Amino acid sequence: MFFASDNWAGAHPKIAQRLTTEAGGFASAYGTSALDKKVEQTFNDIFEREVAVFFVSTGTAANSLALASVGKPGGVIFCHDSAHVFRDECGAPGFFSSAARLTPLGGQHGKIEPINLERGLRSIPPGWIHAGQPMAVTITQLTESGTLYSLDEIERIGRIAKDNNVPLHMDGARFANALTALGVSPADMTWRRGVDILSFGATKNGCWCAEAIVFMNPEQARQLPFIRKQSAQLFSKTRFVAAQFDAYFEDRLWLELAAHANAMADRLRAGIAASSDAREAWKTDGNEIFAIVHNDASRRLREAGAHFADWHEIPEHLHDVIAADETLVRLVTSFATEPSEVDRFVELLR
Amino acid sequence: MFFASDNWAGAHPKIAQRLTTEAGGFASAYGTSALDKKVEQTFNDIFEREVAVFFVSTGTAANSLALASVGKPGGVIFCHDSAHVFRDECGAPGFFSSAARLTPLGGQHGKIEPINLERGLRSIPPGWIHAGQPMAVTITQLTESGTLYSLDEIERIGRIAKDNNVPLHMDGARFANALTALGVSPADMTWRRGVDILSFGATKNGCWCAEAIVFMNPEQARQLPFIRKQSAQLFSKTRFVAAQFDAYFEDRLWLELAAHANAMADRLRAGIAASSDAREAWKTDGNEIFAIVHNDASRRLREAGAHFADWHEIPEHLHDVIAADETLVRLVTSFATEPSEVDRFVELLR
Amino acid sequence: MFFASDNWAGAHPKIAQRLTTEAGGFASAYGTSALDKKVEQTFNDIFEREVAVFFVSTGTAANSLALASVGKPGGVIFCHDSAHVFRDECGAPGFFSSAARLTPLGGQHGKIEPINLERGLRSIPPGWIHAGQPMAVTITQLTESGTLYSLDEIERIGRIAKDNNVPLHMDGARFANALTALGVSPADMTWRRGVDILSFGATKNGCWCAEAIVFMNPEQARQLPFIRKQSAQLFSKTRFVAAQFDAYFEDRLWLELAAHANAMADRLRAGIAASSDAREAWKTDGNEIFAIVHNDASRRLREAGAHFADWHEIPEHLHDVIAADETLVRLVTSFATEPSEVDRFVELLR
Amino acid sequence: MFFASDNWAGAHPKIAQRLTTEAGGFASAYGTSALDKKVEQTFNDIFEREVAVFFVSTGTAANSLALASVGKPGGVIFCHDSAHVFRDECGAPGFFSSAARLTPLGGQHGKIEPINLERGLRSIPPGWIHAGQPMAVTITQLTESGTLYSLDEIERIGRIAKDNNVPLHMDGARFANALTALGVSPADMTWRRGVDILSFGATKNGCWCAEAIVFMNPEQARQLPFIRKQSAQLFSKTRFVAAQFDAYFEDRLWLELAAHANAMADRLRAGIAASSDAREAWKTDGNEIFAIVHNDASRRLREAGAHFADWHEIPEHLHDVIAADETLVRLVTSFATEPSEVDRFVELLR
Repeated sequence: MFFASDNWAGAHPKIAQRLTTEAGGFASAYGTSALDKKVEQTFNDIFEREVAVFFVSTGTAANSLALASVGKPGGVIFCHDSAHVFRDECGAPGFFSSAARLTPLGGQHGKIEPINLERGLRSIPPGWIHAGQPMAVTITQLTESGTLYSLDEIERIGRIAKDNNVPLHMDGARFANALTALGVSPADMTWRRGVDILSFGATKNGCWCAEAIVFMNPEQARQLPFIRKQSAQLFSKTRFVAAQFDAYFEDRLWLELAAHANAMADRLRAGIAASSDAREAWKTDGNEIFAIVHNDASRRLREAGAHFADWHEIPEHLHDVIAADETLVRLVTSFATEPSEVDRFVELLR
Repeated sequence: MFFASDNWAGAHPKIAQRLTTEAGGFASAYGTSALDKKVEQTFNDIFEREVAVFFVSTGTAANSLALASVGKPGGVIFCHDSAHVFRDECGAPGFFSSAARLTPLGGQHGKIEPINLERGLRSIPPGWIHAGQPMAVTITQLTESGTLYSLDEIERIGRIAKDNNVPLHMDGARFANALTALGVSPADMTWRRGVDILSFGATKNGCWCAEAIVFMNPEQARQLPFIRKQSAQLFSKTRFVAAQFDAYFEDRLWLELAAHANAMADRLRAGIAASSDAREAWKTDGNEIFAIVHNDASRRLREAGAHFADWHEIPEHLHDVIAADETLVRLVTSFATEPSEVDRFVELLR
Repeated sequence: MFFASDNWAGAHPKIAQRLTTEAGGFASAYGTSALDKKVEQTFNDIFEREVAVFFVSTGTAANSLALASVGKPGGVIFCHDSAHVFRDECGAPGFFSSAARLTPLGGQHGKIEPINLERGLRSIPPGWIHAGQPMAVTITQLTESGTLYSLDEIERIGRIAKDNNVPLHMDGARFANALTALGVSPADMTWRRGVDILSFGATKNGCWCAEAIVFMNPEQARQLPFIRKQSAQLFSKTRFVAAQFDAYFEDRLWLELAAHANAMADRLRAGIAASSDAREAWKTDGNEIFAIVHNDASRRLREAGAHFADWHEIPEHLHDVIAADETLVRLVTSFATEPSEVDRFVELLR
Repeated sequence: MFFASDNWAGAHPKIAQRLTTEAGGFASAYGTSALDKKVEQTFNDIFEREVAVFFVSTGTAANSLALASVGKPGGVIFCHDSAHVFRDECGAPGFFSSAARLTPLGGQHGKIEPINLERGLRSIPPGWIHAGQPMAVTITQLTESGTLYSLDEIERIGRIAKDNNVPLHMDGARFANALTALGVSPADMTWRRGVDILSFGATKNGCWCAEAIVFMNPEQARQLPFIRKQSAQLFSKTRFVAAQFDAYFEDRLWLELAAHANAMADRLRAGIAASSDAREAWKTDGNEIFAIVHNDASRRLREAGAHFADWHEIPEHLHDVIAADETLVRLVTSFATEPSEVDRFVELLR
């Protein structure tokens, strides 16, 4: 019963197999091989426009280099105050962008409240150099709280960014899960709503190590080759990433894997809803669940071999809701989650 | 006939296979899995002492973070003037270490001349803050010129570093090739001669992506976990690197692969020696050859499908040696080089 | 009627005069002259212990280098969300400290609420490298809101910092005004309450350009000479700063100037209290006043030549308090403020 | 007898006096006062075109921010291998420009040999991202060796830079001395020969602290306001710098002071030429002299109170020229040097 994180899973057999298939022979290095080019074309197809794609080693690298690519001296990045870029990347986004200042904004369940973004932007009047200059807005889809921005909500953020001449970045560590949950196309969830740069994560959804930065406007990516190399993120044997993406996209495997993970989460949600030992802390939409669980049940589950994380960032509105003998926990499903794991977990709940 | 670089090869079948084997199941992320721990123990065995090991994504990352770990404000890094850290990493070593200043030093065929290192260190008198403070010495083994430091030569550099209280780093992008060529142990070629931190490269020698920083004194690595995460170099599914190393080290596969690459280079050297179309530009020791080739022969080889690089950094002593109708080229063999490739190449030479 | 900022004043005649006196002759550069040494000794006397003192060019430099001196990879700095280091230094504190992440904390009127600091520190559990590592707490005295931390309040913050093994920095851009308002000694307001590093500002209080970083424990300053030079903050003719400090401290001039500025603010406060056109927005203690002013009065004052700033960062609890025809303004007095200026301003209020 | 450095002098009486005159009254801060504007206009007049001028605190800051303003990821700066930016600024130029890599080039007596610049630029082929991208060429006028680039020599460097689309920066720490020695105009020595950005130093020539960055094309300076503030180099009371420049430029005082310093050096040169105790090590042109002095004479001079620096960076061609009982020393004159000091020094030589 592995619900600690979707990065505890390994690689999907088809993806692992493709790596083996591609292991032989010789190919030019540093992103210039035929397979690299093929995958770049696939990204164009998926996004229904010509995009610029750069493989990097981690989601933190994707976010950091995406933001660095729009860097300015005294740059200010607006993000949600629970954002991965702010809380969970050990300062990498600032480090790679000459110390851009991250300004955390409030909003329910991981989503930036538009009014807060507008206020944040207004607090940096043009020409008031002491405050720096707005450099980027970044949102996470799925959010850190497992929730989804609707297309309208993305568009609203996108319009504020555009009106202020600031690029919009999306951290898509769980991009496929979000896409599947919303039932929309990649183009619809990104550039058609104002997203300029996307961190496209595939590691959590069945790859070993496959993260990409996608620029909707290739012109904005002109310095990225140098940024990536200076940032020590240019793999020599890039075809090992390309091979993963190639298998990931083939026959819509990626969407199938995400749909499975989401379905497993739904199954778990249903079990929690029927239990008196646990309840959802708030409604989530993809492959993450935040639940308030009785400590007795929690102990029982762990003794039976369940893995999940106690969640320490407790939203203020829950401070009085969680009883002394209860704990907020996070449960994450993945492409590799088995229905039987979910069922066993639910059985252990009363 | 692929002699452009050892990073044009893919992955050795045993290493690719191990990745497939490890793809299933769940394991804790970020370097904490059982397989990660097993591989760390193997590094201890190989180096005959307790070392601290950190996986990173590229050789540039290994070098940069190794140097960053001994960073100081105003730090000065001494390297050979052909060093990868100076010429081929797009400034990454400076970037990751708060802009340490790289001071290039001269010396024949990629090897720092000890007297130059002593002079360089003397040019930064203690307390003369304008000049900064010595921070690291870094050597490359195999060098960028395909040559080897002997154990005595490493020891001499190591002693100068120690006398000046400066750590010694070794860029071991081709560590196994060097080890095999010298016929010595990892401990003998590193800490027993004064090397403090090693960039241990395995990608060029049969892995997809397996680079590690090895601290001979784990105490020196205390800040590395934070440096690595801030540098966006902490993989989530680290077992995909661990699995490669596990197969790489099993039954001394790594030394076998390096020995093969070196033997293929020897075979090529012999062919060149017997040819009137080409001659070695200088003596090399591992899997790299620098040859002066008649332009006619060069054309003929390329037309027949041979890949190799024209070398533009021509040492001064060769300016008058290379004729107008000749070119300096670099030829690199790898674990995947076939004897038949070499033989075909040699046949095409006259 | 100059109440826009205390940095609109020039230099006090005694300080300007001392510069002229010291202009002749020759003295060794870069902080090594006899006058530099004399002033360093004066700092020891003022702080009742041996401190380490470094002159820099701006308050932003003092804050940034002070924080950089305790830098760590992935470092997190805790500050008030209105802090100068967060809002008004164009990202300098992050820039100089390898991109430390500033975490803004809430609290009434510019003062960090201790519970928020404790929560912030708890959100970075030891060993959870994703979150980085606590690196510094910084408070401002006088705060950005013109208020004062009491000695007890400083001590409470200091104890939390100490308990968490994190150094405490104080931004003392208006150090003398705070000292005078509290009526305590420099030692009492700093190291006796847990302050480790102080940005000692004198520019706003009668100097041209005299800012210093004061380390209560000189051992912590070991890297500062290199940090300062690498940060381009080492003046060659440092005696021009030393001369200012020498006159500033002579016969307690500095305290006299601050007392004058504070008294002028008191005089202005009294005038505001008696007016129906304006009222204090909240109680302040030194040479800054935040007042809610009728727009008619504001216009009238400006037409008569008064300078003061409309304040755009309106605390939430005032959103409903300030009427549509009112504005929040900031008024700052200085060593150079004349009683007649204040009286004229007050006369113009009804 | 103060010949250690021109920064051992204080401030010229007229400049000190002007500071006192400007000390009173109120003026808007951060470079917006009437006096700031007046001085900016004077710079336009001096350079015979509209330039953009930014005051900073040190020569190191001027150089570093000038270079940062043309920063690029993986940027490479070409400089002479004795350049101040490379040897004497504790890494600041790299630090402020996201770790640009400084590439030291050879050339006689502090002057870049054009062929070396061409080779350096060729070693970074367009598109070969591993090598980074050329970012700036920087020359020093007067050089670190006290020599002068002729206008033709500047033009030649300027043309190579232009042909390679790389901006040319001039470190003018001793700009006035160079100008006076060449007898040309500021425009002739800079933009008419291809210089794009100038570090305009006045501190060494009679000011307390007056350094400026001058952009010949204001368009290139668009990000400098943010760079300067993020770099902690924006003075609040900028009029204290403006006042110095105002007096410095009035009635051509600056050129008069430089002419005096140069004349004092000529007087010293003549004395050295007539002595058997000392000889010039190479010909210099402004206010610096490098002399080979008998150790007996050196001792005698120091005992009599002479200050000058033993010079440890000995050019290779002098290794065999300097006898065992001789030392290479540097002698610097300044605006404040008295003829009697020079004469006394010369008398002490035999």
